[in-house]
Amino acid sequence: MDEQLTVGEYLIKVLYKNNIKHIFGIPGDYVLGFYDLLNKSKIDIVTTCDEQGAGFAADAYARINGLGAVCVTYCVGGLKILNTTAEAYAEKSPVIVISGAPGINERKKYPMLHHIVKNFDTQHNIFREVTIATTVLDDVDTAISDIDRVVDAVVRYKIPGYIELPRDMVNKKITLSRLWWNISKVQSNQLVLQEALKETIDMINFSKKPVVVAGVEIQRYGVQNLLLELLDKTGIPVVSTPLSKSVINENHPLYLGVYEGAMGYEEVREYVESSDCVILIGSFMTDVDFGNSPTPVDQGKTINLGSSRFLIKYHSFEDVNFQEFIEKLCKSKLIKKHNLDKKLIDNLTQKNRNFINKISNKMINVDLLFQILNDFINENNMVITDVGDSLFGGLDLFIRRGTEFLSPAFYLSMGFAIPASIGAQLANPYLRPIVVVGDGAFQMTGIELSTVAKEKLNPIVILLNNDGYRTERTMLDGHFNDISQWNYTKIINLIGKGKSFVVETTDEFYQALTKAEQNSEYTLIEIKLDKFDASKALKRITDSFRTKVRQ
Amino acid sequence: MDEQLTVGEYLIKVLYKNNIKHIFGIPGDYVLGFYDLLNKSKIDIVTTCDEQGAGFAADAYARINGLGAVCVTYCVGGLKILNTTAEAYAEKSPVIVISGAPGINERKKYPMLHHIVKNFDTQHNIFREVTIATTVLDDVDTAISDIDRVVDAVVRYKIPGYIELPRDMVNKKITLSRLWWNISKVQSNQLVLQEALKETIDMINFSKKPVVVAGVEIQRYGVQNLLLELLDKTGIPVVSTPLSKSVINENHPLYLGVYEGAMGYEEVREYVESSDCVILIGSFMTDVDFGNSPTPVDQGKTINLGSSRFLIKYHSFEDVNFQEFIEKLCKSKLIKKHNLDKKLIDNLTQKNRNFINKISNKMINVDLLFQILNDFINENNMVITDVGDSLFGGLDLFIRRGTEFLSPAFYLSMGFAIPASIGAQLANPYLRPIVVVGDGAFQMTGIELSTVAKEKLNPIVILLNNDGYRTERTMLDGHFNDISQWNYTKIINLIGKGKSFVVETTDEFYQALTKAEQNSEYTLIEIKLDKFDASKALKRITDSFRTKVRQ
Repeated sequence: MDEQLTVGEYLIKVLYKNNIKHIFGIPGDYVLGFYDLLNKSKIDIVTTCDEQGAGFAADAYARINGLGAVCVTYCVGGLKILNTTAEAYAEKSPVIVISGAPGINERKKYPMLHHIVKNFDTQHNIFREVTIATTVLDDVDTAISDIDRVVDAVVRYKIPGYIELPRDMVNKKITLSRLWWNISKVQSNQLVLQEALKETIDMINFSKKPVVVAGVEIQRYGVQNLLLELLDKTGIPVVSTPLSKSVINENHPLYLGVYEGAMGYEEVREYVESSDCVILIGSFMTDVDFGNSPTPVDQGKTINLGSSRFLIKYHSFEDVNFQEFIEKLCKSKLIKKHNLDKKLIDNLTQKNRNFINKISNKMINVDLLFQILNDFINENNMVITDVGDSLFGGLDLFIRRGTEFLSPAFYLSMGFAIPASIGAQLANPYLRPIVVVGDGAFQMTGIELSTVAKEKLNPIVILLNNDGYRTERTMLDGHFNDISQWNYTKIINLIGKGKSFVVETTDEFYQALTKAEQNSEYTLIEIKLDKFDASKALKRITDSFRTKVRQ
Repeated sequence: MDEQLTVGEYLIKVLYKNNIKHIFGIPGDYVLGFYDLLNKSKIDIVTTCDEQGAGFAADAYARINGLGAVCVTYCVGGLKILNTTAEAYAEKSPVIVISGAPGINERKKYPMLHHIVKNFDTQHNIFREVTIATTVLDDVDTAISDIDRVVDAVVRYKIPGYIELPRDMVNKKITLSRLWWNISKVQSNQLVLQEALKETIDMINFSKKPVVVAGVEIQRYGVQNLLLELLDKTGIPVVSTPLSKSVINENHPLYLGVYEGAMGYEEVREYVESSDCVILIGSFMTDVDFGNSPTPVDQGKTINLGSSRFLIKYHSFEDVNFQEFIEKLCKSKLIKKHNLDKKLIDNLTQKNRNFINKISNKMINVDLLFQILNDFINENNMVITDVGDSLFGGLDLFIRRGTEFLSPAFYLSMGFAIPASIGAQLANPYLRPIVVVGDGAFQMTGIELSTVAKEKLNPIVILLNNDGYRTERTMLDGHFNDISQWNYTKIINLIGKGKSFVVETTDEFYQALTKAEQNSEYTLIEIKLDKFDASKALKRITDSFRTKVRQ
């Protein structure tokens, strides 16, 4: 191959080949040369108000698109997105972080270049803690394999990677010494796989009341259809978790609801915790998902299949590839049809779909808000919630299609939702985001509505204004849980674009939603709530929360 | 001693004893118990919109107060302030980072607790890279010495430290086994010190045209008066640097101006670079301070005294304590009075003080803006600038008293100025901040004016609206340097407090400044500038910038 690309051009080519059509970030002098290259490429640059916004947007983009990228300058940009990269790590979102850096040559002349913290390794060392693979592109001879290695690991493990690009390397020529990048396939050890498969199938076949807990890795690894095949074949009911909500179509006749320990519906909790065979597929046993329950799931009754662990009861298997195993399991002809209590299952599945008649003439509260929203959402929406009661209430919403509920339900970083809606809608422009966000989170990153407007996106933002950090008030209250009262709807005047409404009654909420639906711009709907109002879910876990804070 | 304190109470006691009267942060469940303790203490909790704002505020507070503290929750809070902690590290600002964390006991039960990234060491490992000392308070027997060690190192080295407080440790009792905390004094090796002192004095005495470059460590270590003694005794002229501007009273008859390589006044540059004895005191040789010069300072003619390095020409001395050496040098009777070219010095010192007559009836531009501002500022102000032309132009301002010019002039993190004004004014309520900030930086953290209003502070914020990242346009332009045009003055309607003005002419600027001065609230003055207008300083370095970006 004679084609001569530069390091920067090759990186862009690999990104584009892996479906990156948008990249998020803010330029700075150490990354300007690469921005110039990006600008000439097919990848759109999406600049945000603050780097934090770019980080959240890239994370959301990655969750929907299968890969995301954020591009920033050295340290003053990179360290601002450490939290969002940590979030992507914790929740398995494949984000590539590209950071500009001082040129290799200028490092020799001035050890104290601007943006340097301790030395030239500081940022790299830090990112090692929140990524699966890293590289500093300081060598034209290895640039291809370095880039390939990082992108390969990110795509394979669904964990962020870090690429540092010194500014004097961007335009250095490389020679293409091998074929274009391809994801290498990891093969299982077939002896281990066969033993594990037999034991799994036996345990399922001999169980009386099996249940599948469908985790977020089902979406990350794209095995939704295999799971559906398994359910159809066996008749085993399925639940999701806070982090994986909407991984399975909530219309599915075997879908029971979200399992979330003591926080969720009592009937769903009971069903799972009384099962004699809990099949966890791609699900992490986090405190949010599994915590706070009086009768937690008994490990002696679980099969726990995931990309980085495989346990049956108390023993584990190594060298079993997650995707390969799921495929073998779901397509197995040895797995039998279960005859389960259909009435019980039907009762549970119907519970999620309890639509309501119009609720007129009432003051709005959190419960009514989510009930009305449940009725409003349709298959052309995706739901993105921030942390706190936005999430707790949002979990009770009925989501009609796969992969359209986004929330940092395990890492729980506030400020996610509004910038995430940018990445999410750019990744899937066919679904209009419904964003549910509290006032505390809105004060952190709500200003990114400016980027929403710049990119001509049109989320409907439901702002729960309850005058502070409501979830914390449940745990331990003090003036530190109060925040300044803003005139939130005035943000459209500051930004110069958008529509806004203030809602105090159910009728006003219906009207605002209708107008928002007709409006082609983003729309902010501020819901005035009582300071101590809360969702049913939050009320259910109040006591448990209190105990933990004061240990 | 019989008094029984808890771990949390002891930490608060040490902070308060070290002059911490305000602590910045946002609560979260892992840190709520400690917030409750803080709330009952004499330390005021200052919550901000986003943790980033708290980080910048604590950094500014530390620079003025001698110690600052920021208190956040685990990871989702802590990792948001990594950039501001890195800034404090790079620019030697003594900030204590306190992070809540999962309880030691709950870690055993659930390895996957919310906010966890990789494992329970992740955040601690990351903060090691940007701090001088760290501790996880997991043991009541060592809690006292762990806290003392970190606070001691922060105060001694003026570098941030990290204290992680698991939530089940906050209320655990400790026994006070020794006296209250006291900073240990580091002693120099007297043999080394004597040799270094003799050589330093000889080199100064034999030089023909010595000059002192007064660095930021003079302020951090509180040796301003010793420096003044040295200047008075020797008649040697002095310059500051971008990072240390205002470390010496700019009215001083020997003060020549800010040395900033090719960026600064040509006469100041020439004076320093033609000196046969450049005495750097507590100054880092950064690219911002010393870069971009055609005839850089010759190391063979320098004495470089600092807290972490001591070089004379090309040889170095170890084990010499900075403060002790400065004291010995400045008080030495062997150092002689120099007879320097008084006329040349007077010419240079007068250059800074060129006040202007009223400039009426002109459209405003960056140069006029800083000229008018120079005339407006008085001894009751401090000046805080953000990064970019706010800083470049700000360096030409004439600052009338010590320690009232604040800027991240080396680390150059955008978004510093507005949250920094919160920490700065709380640390010194007697000076009213003049904040100079660009539109790009304003979109990052300008929303913290909400916190400004909540805390009843009253900075005068001068917003340079030039429609994008102006400094980058100089280097390499593209649409990525554009930002959305906001109606900036509408932010007061969103926040519900404050005054604002839009300025397009010099007369309007005079009027706005007069009204701002009379107004007891914070005031935002938006200056409409041409997209390509720039300060003289930025124009001087345009070519050098361009070359570096395209290497």
